[in-house]
Amino acid sequence: MPDASPVKWHLAHVTWFFETFVLEAFEAGFRPHHPAYRVLFNSYYQAVGERHPRPQRGLVTRPSLAEVLAWRRAVDDRVQALLHSGTAPTLAERVELGLQHEQQHQELLLTDLLHLFSCNPLAPVYRPLPLLPEAVPLPLAWVPQQGGLTTIGHAGDGFAFDNETPRHRVYLQPCALANRLTTQGEWADFVADAGYRDPRWWLAAGWDWVQAQGIEAPLYWRRAEGGRWEEFTLHGQVSLAPHAPVVHVSLYEADAYARWAAAEQRLPLRLPTEAEWEHAAAPLAAAGMANGNFVESQALQTLPVAGTAPGLLQMYGDVWEWTRSAYLPYPGFRVWAGAVGEYNGKFMIDQTVLRGGSCATPRSHIRASYRNFFPAGARWQFSGVRLACDAE
Amino acid sequence: MPDASPVKWHLAHVTWFFETFVLEAFEAGFRPHHPAYRVLFNSYYQAVGERHPRPQRGLVTRPSLAEVLAWRRAVDDRVQALLHSGTAPTLAERVELGLQHEQQHQELLLTDLLHLFSCNPLAPVYRPLPLLPEAVPLPLAWVPQQGGLTTIGHAGDGFAFDNETPRHRVYLQPCALANRLTTQGEWADFVADAGYRDPRWWLAAGWDWVQAQGIEAPLYWRRAEGGRWEEFTLHGQVSLAPHAPVVHVSLYEADAYARWAAAEQRLPLRLPTEAEWEHAAAPLAAAGMANGNFVESQALQTLPVAGTAPGLLQMYGDVWEWTRSAYLPYPGFRVWAGAVGEYNGKFMIDQTVLRGGSCATPRSHIRASYRNFFPAGARWQFSGVRLACDAE
Amino acid sequence: MPDASPVKWHLAHVTWFFETFVLEAFEAGFRPHHPAYRVLFNSYYQAVGERHPRPQRGLVTRPSLAEVLAWRRAVDDRVQALLHSGTAPTLAERVELGLQHEQQHQELLLTDLLHLFSCNPLAPVYRPLPLLPEAVPLPLAWVPQQGGLTTIGHAGDGFAFDNETPRHRVYLQPCALANRLTTQGEWADFVADAGYRDPRWWLAAGWDWVQAQGIEAPLYWRRAEGGRWEEFTLHGQVSLAPHAPVVHVSLYEADAYARWAAAEQRLPLRLPTEAEWEHAAAPLAAAGMANGNFVESQALQTLPVAGTAPGLLQMYGDVWEWTRSAYLPYPGFRVWAGAVGEYNGKFMIDQTVLRGGSCATPRSHIRASYRNFFPAGARWQFSGVRLACDAE
Amino acid sequence: MPDASPVKWHLAHVTWFFETFVLEAFEAGFRPHHPAYRVLFNSYYQAVGERHPRPQRGLVTRPSLAEVLAWRRAVDDRVQALLHSGTAPTLAERVELGLQHEQQHQELLLTDLLHLFSCNPLAPVYRPLPLLPEAVPLPLAWVPQQGGLTTIGHAGDGFAFDNETPRHRVYLQPCALANRLTTQGEWADFVADAGYRDPRWWLAAGWDWVQAQGIEAPLYWRRAEGGRWEEFTLHGQVSLAPHAPVVHVSLYEADAYARWAAAEQRLPLRLPTEAEWEHAAAPLAAAGMANGNFVESQALQTLPVAGTAPGLLQMYGDVWEWTRSAYLPYPGFRVWAGAVGEYNGKFMIDQTVLRGGSCATPRSHIRASYRNFFPAGARWQFSGVRLACDAE
Repeated sequence: MPDASPVKWHLAHVTWFFETFVLEAFEAGFRPHHPAYRVLFNSYYQAVGERHPRPQRGLVTRPSLAEVLAWRRAVDDRVQALLHSGTAPTLAERVELGLQHEQQHQELLLTDLLHLFSCNPLAPVYRPLPLLPEAVPLPLAWVPQQGGLTTIGHAGDGFAFDNETPRHRVYLQPCALANRLTTQGEWADFVADAGYRDPRWWLAAGWDWVQAQGIEAPLYWRRAEGGRWEEFTLHGQVSLAPHAPVVHVSLYEADAYARWAAAEQRLPLRLPTEAEWEHAAAPLAAAGMANGNFVESQALQTLPVAGTAPGLLQMYGDVWEWTRSAYLPYPGFRVWAGAVGEYNGKFMIDQTVLRGGSCATPRSHIRASYRNFFPAGARWQFSGVRLACDAE
Repeated sequence: MPDASPVKWHLAHVTWFFETFVLEAFEAGFRPHHPAYRVLFNSYYQAVGERHPRPQRGLVTRPSLAEVLAWRRAVDDRVQALLHSGTAPTLAERVELGLQHEQQHQELLLTDLLHLFSCNPLAPVYRPLPLLPEAVPLPLAWVPQQGGLTTIGHAGDGFAFDNETPRHRVYLQPCALANRLTTQGEWADFVADAGYRDPRWWLAAGWDWVQAQGIEAPLYWRRAEGGRWEEFTLHGQVSLAPHAPVVHVSLYEADAYARWAAAEQRLPLRLPTEAEWEHAAAPLAAAGMANGNFVESQALQTLPVAGTAPGLLQMYGDVWEWTRSAYLPYPGFRVWAGAVGEYNGKFMIDQTVLRGGSCATPRSHIRASYRNFFPAGARWQFSGVRLACDAE
Repeated sequence: MPDASPVKWHLAHVTWFFETFVLEAFEAGFRPHHPAYRVLFNSYYQAVGERHPRPQRGLVTRPSLAEVLAWRRAVDDRVQALLHSGTAPTLAERVELGLQHEQQHQELLLTDLLHLFSCNPLAPVYRPLPLLPEAVPLPLAWVPQQGGLTTIGHAGDGFAFDNETPRHRVYLQPCALANRLTTQGEWADFVADAGYRDPRWWLAAGWDWVQAQGIEAPLYWRRAEGGRWEEFTLHGQVSLAPHAPVVHVSLYEADAYARWAAAEQRLPLRLPTEAEWEHAAAPLAAAGMANGNFVESQALQTLPVAGTAPGLLQMYGDVWEWTRSAYLPYPGFRVWAGAVGEYNGKFMIDQTVLRGGSCATPRSHIRASYRNFFPAGARWQFSGVRLACDAE
Repeated sequence: MPDASPVKWHLAHVTWFFETFVLEAFEAGFRPHHPAYRVLFNSYYQAVGERHPRPQRGLVTRPSLAEVLAWRRAVDDRVQALLHSGTAPTLAERVELGLQHEQQHQELLLTDLLHLFSCNPLAPVYRPLPLLPEAVPLPLAWVPQQGGLTTIGHAGDGFAFDNETPRHRVYLQPCALANRLTTQGEWADFVADAGYRDPRWWLAAGWDWVQAQGIEAPLYWRRAEGGRWEEFTLHGQVSLAPHAPVVHVSLYEADAYARWAAAEQRLPLRLPTEAEWEHAAAPLAAAGMANGNFVESQALQTLPVAGTAPGLLQMYGDVWEWTRSAYLPYPGFRVWAGAVGEYNGKFMIDQTVLRGGSCATPRSHIRASYRNFFPAGARWQFSGVRLACDAE
């Protein structure tokens, strides 16, 4: 899988990030720990220089894990020393960026590991299946959203990526959002109804993708004896939890599901836009209700809705929610100055925005304005679906 | 070039369109002219049935041109007969759609022919170079655009494609638009300044594209003796007209040019959004000023600005203007019912909107709300650039 | 199909061959008919200069057919004039080479046309099916071949390609050759016995090829209603003639068939080597018995054995017989001097030798020493199978 | 590199071989150590069942190295127990085959490791450069070889692979063989003379390969400061030893070099056939002179000729010598019965024979009749060149 990287590479790359963007920028008389590491562990920063070819990341048997760990300790010590000397005004901002970056790779490390294990016929288990509470199914309901002028984008003093700014006005049509995420049980109905074999539901590129790759179900679903579906997870291969949110679906699948569901339910269903999502999700955060199934819950899988509260549930955590918005610059967008300007802006083409964080995301990493993005065919992330419905 | 089709195929396909969407829908006791033609000349309508593989269009030596022309005459006669009988209320709408469709293929036919000839070392000439008036260069100037709430999308009774609807409100930031299109002379400065070799200006996917394909200039630019640029056109290989709009550039190039120009001019330059474009262009059409260099001028190439009028020039005709908007459904969008619903909606992913028509477009085909769309790397169309500038 | 070329290209290329290797070499004050044709219609001669990319041959809509025909007439006239002036000693040899070359392209033209028509859902007919005599099936029998020292390679004064020389000694083990070619009926048994789905019979590369391309039968076999096999030919789609030789099979298929037949018949069956074939075939030619179903018979398809004569039948014509010999230089092989040295020698790697000519080959083109060669997966030629059997 | 496998995989695969072909065949009540290992570590034996996709070998992070080592110890114990019980007559033969197979993988392990390290910008060192004796250059000389009828193939009671049998007669033309291997200094002259940029020397497929992959020198040659050549080896990146045999060249390069050398020296030079090589090499082995630079010398690189003895030097060890013989079945060849029959026979297409073993081959593994084989573009093995010359 060309998108995934080995665990050791992730560890080395986040170390590289601190060395390059903190130490090199702020340390007097900076010298790199090892010159070749600058090439080996640079992901995509052209301004920093050469990069090791991405598909060869799996071939980097040297440096050894012990050497990478030693490098990390040395970089940590130097960053600590810098922070204690503490004069540069922007140093703390850069260390914050390094930590946010590392949080992103903590999530990628889990998604890459899940993919790696999924390719292994031994079906390795990362962590035993936790004991989960009995699920109480919650019927799908529609939570109306007012339209009109609203404002989205990052506000306040906290950390945000450049792509969340500037805060700006947008005009929304009224609509309704599903009260919860689409479940695996609902998705199984889509599969059973030949949803993956009917071009009516699919974008043209999605249909090509389904045909070319022989896609029949979410990434880690597997047929068990008797045709029953099972799911490969970080807990190994387990029965499908019907009330848990569906996960590891692409934008193509999410969009096709919405079109199928619209026909089934005779409602103008679709995926929400990112502005609709943020407009609905921001008040929850402001009210201290941005809780959810994040990596700290240690579930490492999606969980059924807890309880039967009214309003919007599962907006944060569980799965990254595909929107129907292209990942594009906000009006007035400016990339950060310097090489860190390559962090986000240069990827703003042919990618789709996802919102809300997942069961593999650190809770402190997520904001209402947070924009994740992946190509329409990506599905090794913990990505899922919340439906929207046009107001009549 | 997998995107291009032979001339005979275009002729047969537009005939197929009338046969399938007019005759089959409205003719009593309909029988197709030849059953195999329904497969051979179906472009992408899944609901109509099987299609001949697109890359094999060049291999269809049978039916012969004479047979296709005979088919066309027969279909024309049957459509005429239907129109004279004239009872079905929606028949005229379908014939209108067939005509609009044929206008699109008239443009494609020219762009495909240009590409075909460009691959031939004989450099064939489609039509001799017309005698053009002396060009008076017009300096680039910025025409301010007010922001605020506005409305875009098709209005009124005339024909429009489903993707132009529904008309809806959007909120715009204030900005300025360039008074004219970017010229070939300006683009030559970008090339001379190593713009195609500096990753700073490029989207990541654009940089990969430039590197992988060895792109160095617009599609049909060629180095002549002494390093001077020439251009392959439907008039053969000719000197570059420096004051004519640059053409045959991809979205990647358009976006990179804007970033380079922003650095050169120390202005927040960028491509416009489609809403900004339409908001500025609609009043021109309403005022009867949607003139421009369309296919009827018979120039078949871009032309320098005529005169030095203030305000926005060249908004219509000359080149399709790349916007920085993804081709996505408008709020409340519904596809047309039936197989014609595949016309537009299923392509709404990973494509970018272009506006305004080109020197190969029939004048009557264009509206302020017209949305053309192509992938970010496409450049065999007559596509060019108008810059926008953020208001400070 | 990247191996096939359009008819007009073949016509132009054989004209190019005469212009380049006859006129340019022998005509005083030679000037090419059109400089660009030298690039457009050069197949693979590096020493002659640039070549037009092979996959773009289908895009050469200019020069028109009329222009190519005019070129051909002009070249013919100039060659005639040269022959009448007639002084250069090697001129006749070169004209002979040009004629032999043209014979090869006459065969390729038919095989390429068959392939082109086979891709067309209209299933065009090149020529109506001839009325064929009733076939009398001839049982397979083994004709013993003595081993020992023998001599192969071209002998005598007639024309031969460089790859047939020098004549040299080889040592052969005794074996037996099948009295006739493998028939379509026999091949249908192989198909029915799941021969294409059992890796035991296949070379590893052949098995990969079968799997990757979903091969289930010879190239032009097609399932008709009821599961019956039909065959696409230059006469359109017709019933499979069970007693006619199987044709359009690759070396992979030929080799797999031999291994399956060996298991079926409990005999050490295999394909013959080219030396074994030539050793057996040369006496027939010497005895004036090199007759067969060549292009002059106008059948344009394989024919059942005529009569029940003892000895080796169908050695010449009908199908090119796959051998189990790699196409390699004979001991002491020297390529021709000059650019014509690229005719054969540079292809001597990873190709397999075929012998005997086919129903699309001109009769005068074939010799016992003639070596045809194609990659192991090629099957759009009229290629088939004669089995050999080790002597116990 | 799709041809190379990780070290752990090699270890597991040779263990799998013993488990599958010794234990499963001979152990009463056999049960595999772990059922999934049978799939994971099966290289290409269809008859044994499913195999893990080769390109995914690098992704097998489970089982861990400790688990593989434990498996190996368990299999070793069970094989020992079987040997002590010792009743089956063919058991010793199968264990011998397992050992021969393991010797092959010992060599592959070194060549794969060298390739892996060569991709790492850290240029890891497998073992420090040994202190080598001063090289005394030996001029190239020609050792005449009589032609006529000879016999090749395995003789005697010792172990041999099926592909070396049956022993059979061949007729050879007289020729001469180079007294030593082609050196790196000689090869540097070929490079300096633009040998990689002149299509005259190359097979057509070789020229395509050179162009498509940008090949300029042997696989591990690298330009150092000042244009001087260095070489990446298992001892890291070192100066080129001019008198040591050139190594890591493909058949394409070897063949091109021979053609260039022929033009340079105005001699009919070429690569030898495998029969010529064996005919010359067998007497050396019979005379106890099959010594050479094998893995036991611990040089792990090619070494200059030691001394100035007359006759053929370096026939064994140093490099696998490319022949100009396709890897094809000998007359009367029979594959081994059962799944081990897939060991050699099914690869007999489009591969070329190499002879003599290399500096990474165990000495006891090599025989005069030993046939190694690789595709014409392979060069990560220790492969080199000995020239042959036609007798006039």
